[in-house]
Amino acid sequence: MPGCNDPGFDINKIVHGGDVYRNRVLLDYSVNLNPLAMPGSVTEASLSGLGEMHQYPDPYQVELRKAIGCYEGIDSGNIVCGNGASELIMAAVHAFRPRAALITAPCYAGYARALMASDTEVTEYALDENRGFLLDHSFLECLDENIDMVFLADPNNPNGAVIDQVLKEKIIEKCADKGIVLLLDECFLPLTGMNETKATERGCVLHLRAFTKTFAIPGIRIGYLYSDNTDALELIRLHLPEWNVSRIAERTGTEAAKILSDTEYLRDSVLMIRREREYLSHELKQLGIRVYPSDVNYLLLKSDVDLYHRLLERGVLVRRCASFSGLSDSFIRIAVRSHEDNLHFIEILKTVLK
Amino acid sequence: MPGCNDPGFDINKIVHGGDVYRNRVLLDYSVNLNPLAMPGSVTEASLSGLGEMHQYPDPYQVELRKAIGCYEGIDSGNIVCGNGASELIMAAVHAFRPRAALITAPCYAGYARALMASDTEVTEYALDENRGFLLDHSFLECLDENIDMVFLADPNNPNGAVIDQVLKEKIIEKCADKGIVLLLDECFLPLTGMNETKATERGCVLHLRAFTKTFAIPGIRIGYLYSDNTDALELIRLHLPEWNVSRIAERTGTEAAKILSDTEYLRDSVLMIRREREYLSHELKQLGIRVYPSDVNYLLLKSDVDLYHRLLERGVLVRRCASFSGLSDSFIRIAVRSHEDNLHFIEILKTVLK
Repeated sequence: MPGCNDPGFDINKIVHGGDVYRNRVLLDYSVNLNPLAMPGSVTEASLSGLGEMHQYPDPYQVELRKAIGCYEGIDSGNIVCGNGASELIMAAVHAFRPRAALITAPCYAGYARALMASDTEVTEYALDENRGFLLDHSFLECLDENIDMVFLADPNNPNGAVIDQVLKEKIIEKCADKGIVLLLDECFLPLTGMNETKATERGCVLHLRAFTKTFAIPGIRIGYLYSDNTDALELIRLHLPEWNVSRIAERTGTEAAKILSDTEYLRDSVLMIRREREYLSHELKQLGIRVYPSDVNYLLLKSDVDLYHRLLERGVLVRRCASFSGLSDSFIRIAVRSHEDNLHFIEILKTVLK
Repeated sequence: MPGCNDPGFDINKIVHGGDVYRNRVLLDYSVNLNPLAMPGSVTEASLSGLGEMHQYPDPYQVELRKAIGCYEGIDSGNIVCGNGASELIMAAVHAFRPRAALITAPCYAGYARALMASDTEVTEYALDENRGFLLDHSFLECLDENIDMVFLADPNNPNGAVIDQVLKEKIIEKCADKGIVLLLDECFLPLTGMNETKATERGCVLHLRAFTKTFAIPGIRIGYLYSDNTDALELIRLHLPEWNVSRIAERTGTEAAKILSDTEYLRDSVLMIRREREYLSHELKQLGIRVYPSDVNYLLLKSDVDLYHRLLERGVLVRRCASFSGLSDSFIRIAVRSHEDNLHFIEILKTVLK
């Protein structure tokens, strides 16, 4: 009977974490969200937004951009908001239609997905496993006239290491020199505690941020781009649909930005994540699992044991990494969660490895 | 001080209805939403979705598409969901990148906006005011090899007249013959009560629908495209970001589709709108205002009096139509609302015209 069957997609194509819709999950270590409980005022703002569902969202997002601008210390005219960071990645590609783009391997799959939809030739810079997947200065050599656009995550996903600050500045400089659009995916940067840098920028650098990770609200969909290059932002805006940020996301994001400006929420989150990341790393290494350097709320692990399936049998979902270019089935990514969850996770892992 | 000033947009560029953010509005007749109160179960579903904000939405929207498929009587594999109809308009243009497209004048401004962002050459077919802005057979002559894509609204916005069924079928046939992608914007069609037709289709016809108008929930953002042409849908899906439908929209849309399948909500809405549209038309004509033919919950009006500003002075916002190609400042569009509101509106209008 039509309409009541057929999911209409290939279940094997799932390449993201958090697919709790097709797994029986008691403990979800596959998504990398802030483990610290969200301030109540953010939930209240979401509820207010829902109460205004009969109203169109503000197409210009004046209040939202103002709140974000206050938090980031930038002018609200330098901000474009999106229906999650994923919408802004897609819009940036549609706006610039790069002929050739450079990404790292591994990295978040969404960059290649957006680029390939627009027939961009994608070049991968392979991060070296033996160097812990850290970005190094040899990356600069790939930035030449053949490249129109670069996607770079700071910290990178799935490994979680931030880019060396000196290197990052050199990359920004070289992209400016070569006329390359640089999209810096900094969605996780606030959770590293290394968020303070704001270099004066030439060229076209797009900073991508979101509240998804910082407030653990992936169901809401709210992200933003900021840049000194307002022409670039204007071009991107043309490729975004009207009312792209829902009324709920608008209200939630406005309150979230205020919380980040006015409270210790982010500092507390960073401290908790650091403590728990160190705990997990220590325990994992004790269990003979390779742990790569991370500055944020997730860890890339390598093991000869099929951890993904063994953990799933016990109701723990982790992120399988075989779909990341440059990685194999030996790699998984886990989230850094609350201490209670992490104790539980390590206990289960021990039984799995017995 | 940066970040705390400058809205960053040109207030004069506002070209949509419902801008309650920059007007003092007591009675909003500028947005055209279903005036019948929404069933409580839809609000409950929205609340459940909000309760799941810590979860990613289902990237494949399995439940949502299944519910829509059951309502529309089509296979869920023939449906693509979007963050409002506006996202799907933009994605269709990004997917097909038409060299040249045909739209009507007047029509919804979003088509031209999306097309122009992708450098499409836009041709306008002028609807004839003397024929009540009704689409006629001469439109068929414009469908030739020079056109790659057509956007057609049924019923059209801002006038509200449905397309003659025989003509619509001829347009579908001719677009198929000429290899033209036809996007039929049917977002308002359910509210006309003339929703039953499902022609067997050749070529590439994309039916655009949304819950925004039917349930008066523009703050939520939920729309969908359906088509027999699954290749076209697959292409469009590639140009949509991951998780484009929020968890709240997903839950709301699923329940909304069930309400449309299982209850008399739509029939009651259509009856109320028809009754109130007739009441308003009658009263407006008595007051010497020209009313164009409409089959839905809004009316295009013409008057020598500056109704927009005079009504706004009294707290009533209507849709100014000068921004619609083919119309001038003499035209406004009003919504058809509840009888109580409409009585109030006519009272205010009488004082304005004194």
